[in-house]
Amino acid sequence: MNVTVLGRTQHHRTVAFDRARNSVLLIEQRLLPHEFKIVATKNFRETARAITDMVVRGAGAIGATAAYGLAQGALAFRGGDLKKFPHHVEAVYQTLKDARPTAVDPVNAMNDVRREMARGETVAEQQSLALAAAEEFANEDVRHCEAIGRHGAKLIRNGMNILTHCNAGWLAFVDVGSATAPMYAAQARGKKFHVFCDETRPRSQGATLTAWELAQQKIPHHIIADNAAGHLMQRGEIDMVIVGSDRTLGRTGEVANKIGTYTKAVLAARHKIPFYVAIPLSTIDWKLKRGFDIPIEERCESEVLGAWGVPWNLKSQISNLKSRRVFVRVANPTSSARNPGFDVTPAELITGIITPVGIFKPGELWQRRHGLGFQS
Amino acid sequence: MNVTVLGRTQHHRTVAFDRARNSVLLIEQRLLPHEFKIVATKNFRETARAITDMVVRGAGAIGATAAYGLAQGALAFRGGDLKKFPHHVEAVYQTLKDARPTAVDPVNAMNDVRREMARGETVAEQQSLALAAAEEFANEDVRHCEAIGRHGAKLIRNGMNILTHCNAGWLAFVDVGSATAPMYAAQARGKKFHVFCDETRPRSQGATLTAWELAQQKIPHHIIADNAAGHLMQRGEIDMVIVGSDRTLGRTGEVANKIGTYTKAVLAARHKIPFYVAIPLSTIDWKLKRGFDIPIEERCESEVLGAWGVPWNLKSQISNLKSRRVFVRVANPTSSARNPGFDVTPAELITGIITPVGIFKPGELWQRRHGLGFQS
Repeated sequence: MNVTVLGRTQHHRTVAFDRARNSVLLIEQRLLPHEFKIVATKNFRETARAITDMVVRGAGAIGATAAYGLAQGALAFRGGDLKKFPHHVEAVYQTLKDARPTAVDPVNAMNDVRREMARGETVAEQQSLALAAAEEFANEDVRHCEAIGRHGAKLIRNGMNILTHCNAGWLAFVDVGSATAPMYAAQARGKKFHVFCDETRPRSQGATLTAWELAQQKIPHHIIADNAAGHLMQRGEIDMVIVGSDRTLGRTGEVANKIGTYTKAVLAARHKIPFYVAIPLSTIDWKLKRGFDIPIEERCESEVLGAWGVPWNLKSQISNLKSRRVFVRVANPTSSARNPGFDVTPAELITGIITPVGIFKPGELWQRRHGLGFQS
Repeated sequence: MNVTVLGRTQHHRTVAFDRARNSVLLIEQRLLPHEFKIVATKNFRETARAITDMVVRGAGAIGATAAYGLAQGALAFRGGDLKKFPHHVEAVYQTLKDARPTAVDPVNAMNDVRREMARGETVAEQQSLALAAAEEFANEDVRHCEAIGRHGAKLIRNGMNILTHCNAGWLAFVDVGSATAPMYAAQARGKKFHVFCDETRPRSQGATLTAWELAQQKIPHHIIADNAAGHLMQRGEIDMVIVGSDRTLGRTGEVANKIGTYTKAVLAARHKIPFYVAIPLSTIDWKLKRGFDIPIEERCESEVLGAWGVPWNLKSQISNLKSRRVFVRVANPTSSARNPGFDVTPAELITGIITPVGIFKPGELWQRRHGLGFQS
């Protein structure tokens, strides 16, 4: 999507590839929203480290990064020895797989790339097939998000106030995003609306990443404390909620997403405000039988006890040390915290699930499972 | 309540008076939880400034501070001129009243002191009556909180997990607090329980003040992000909610309290978890007819866009600059925020209102209005 640096607006993807330098290009997300910088990795090991160190995050984005990383590693192989090449590729694969061991997207993406590569009869053929497959993986991610946008945009009317939680924006994908896709598509169709971004403590992805995206795209928005949405709903100031999902259960329609999503769904139901979840089909889990069994990661307590930010002079409204982020301890130094990272929203609270192939009630997913990609 | 400094535990009140030095003693709340310090004001002007600058905050605490400040000002008058003395007292009264113009507690407290003073026939008599009345105001605040504790403690059973929001603790009163009073009383009766403190963004009073209080009092507790309570309720990890209130409508039982309270009440109702509000009778508004008419202050957006804290080294777990708080900008620098400070919880979501004279259903307040202090 659009990024404006020093008055110049350019289109960027979260992940891209520089063929001439055999380099994966990543937006350095840890510097956002205070600084915009593109990182060019020199080799697949640097690409793996970028995944580990959260330079890039989000299911679609790390999938594409791993796919490009595998192609990058394959392309770095010198010579035409078809016996040695697979061992080299296997080492690249393992390195990228180990970069974020619990994530499934890098593995799925790299399996796609390896399957395509196998069609080549020489090292050179396999190398170019690898890059083509990685490009195709990234392009397909974008097409899926654009399709979510086309379906979701129909829900957005002029004058609406939309609430979103966390960041399911283009920074979490290759481009366009999931929860943000309907907004970007509606904007492209000339619709006028306003977005409330939940701050999304403890990691504040709403205040940092989503707000940055919307500002770059010139979509009117305000950040709110996670505590404020209930009050705004009470006063009729929110017309719709759109969030993303890390995992949606195909059997039950339950949605696992960033901690606090469930709370917003409960509030929306009380106020009869439509609550939508926008997802690519790859995040549907067709196996798990109940949401209660989704493992909820207990994250580091320091996230709750403090905050990352840039020292800021409230009077002059400028930062003292531009883009040098520091961690401040907010909480009582002798207290501990609990920090569940995700929660599960039951199907009954979800108005609709916006997918690349249409909008469904949560209960419809299982009926339509074959059309939605379930391999039984 | 208890404060331990350098291994030595002492009992402190939020507000006290030093007769020998004619000085109001205040816990410097802006340094908490990182540093504990008592401020001794030299004269009534310094006392007024301490109210303005939020050295002391909370309805009961600023009421007592203004009462002591009026006595302090009266005691500073030299001589016995009964003509000049009232003018002097009036100037003190106005200065303290102007310290926080929208607050009603300082005015009510000072009116009590003036009424008592009027019984004196000499300047010296009026001066000592002023101090006695201020002491009585403070003591009554403590007695009311202790009575809330006696009633509320009956609700707390061994092994319970209690959720609280914001700080309605002893730091907001002269001692004991309102929402915390049942916890302190239950602890004194030997009950074992655990408290979840909502962080309470944007000002984080839960993570800073309530967590500090509970740590000082050695009550087991964890801080959680405001987003986490819904998930914990879903998993059966919260048994009761106790919060305070800035204003409770006697006619409807609606409760205005810190932003986010309403959300917790909605979640508690969904999970059939008892939701209690602990209040002194002075916060009941007998006039207003509906909660919708309670003015909701829109506070400074910078509170939402960043956080106050102490620079902290996550690896060594120590602060770089002990007790030097800095403000960091967390959010995207080109985004704005909305910041409603309070919300209104309807009576239907409230299990009971814990007062110094008993626990009532919200709907009972109006029936019992004469017993509860309503002057019709």
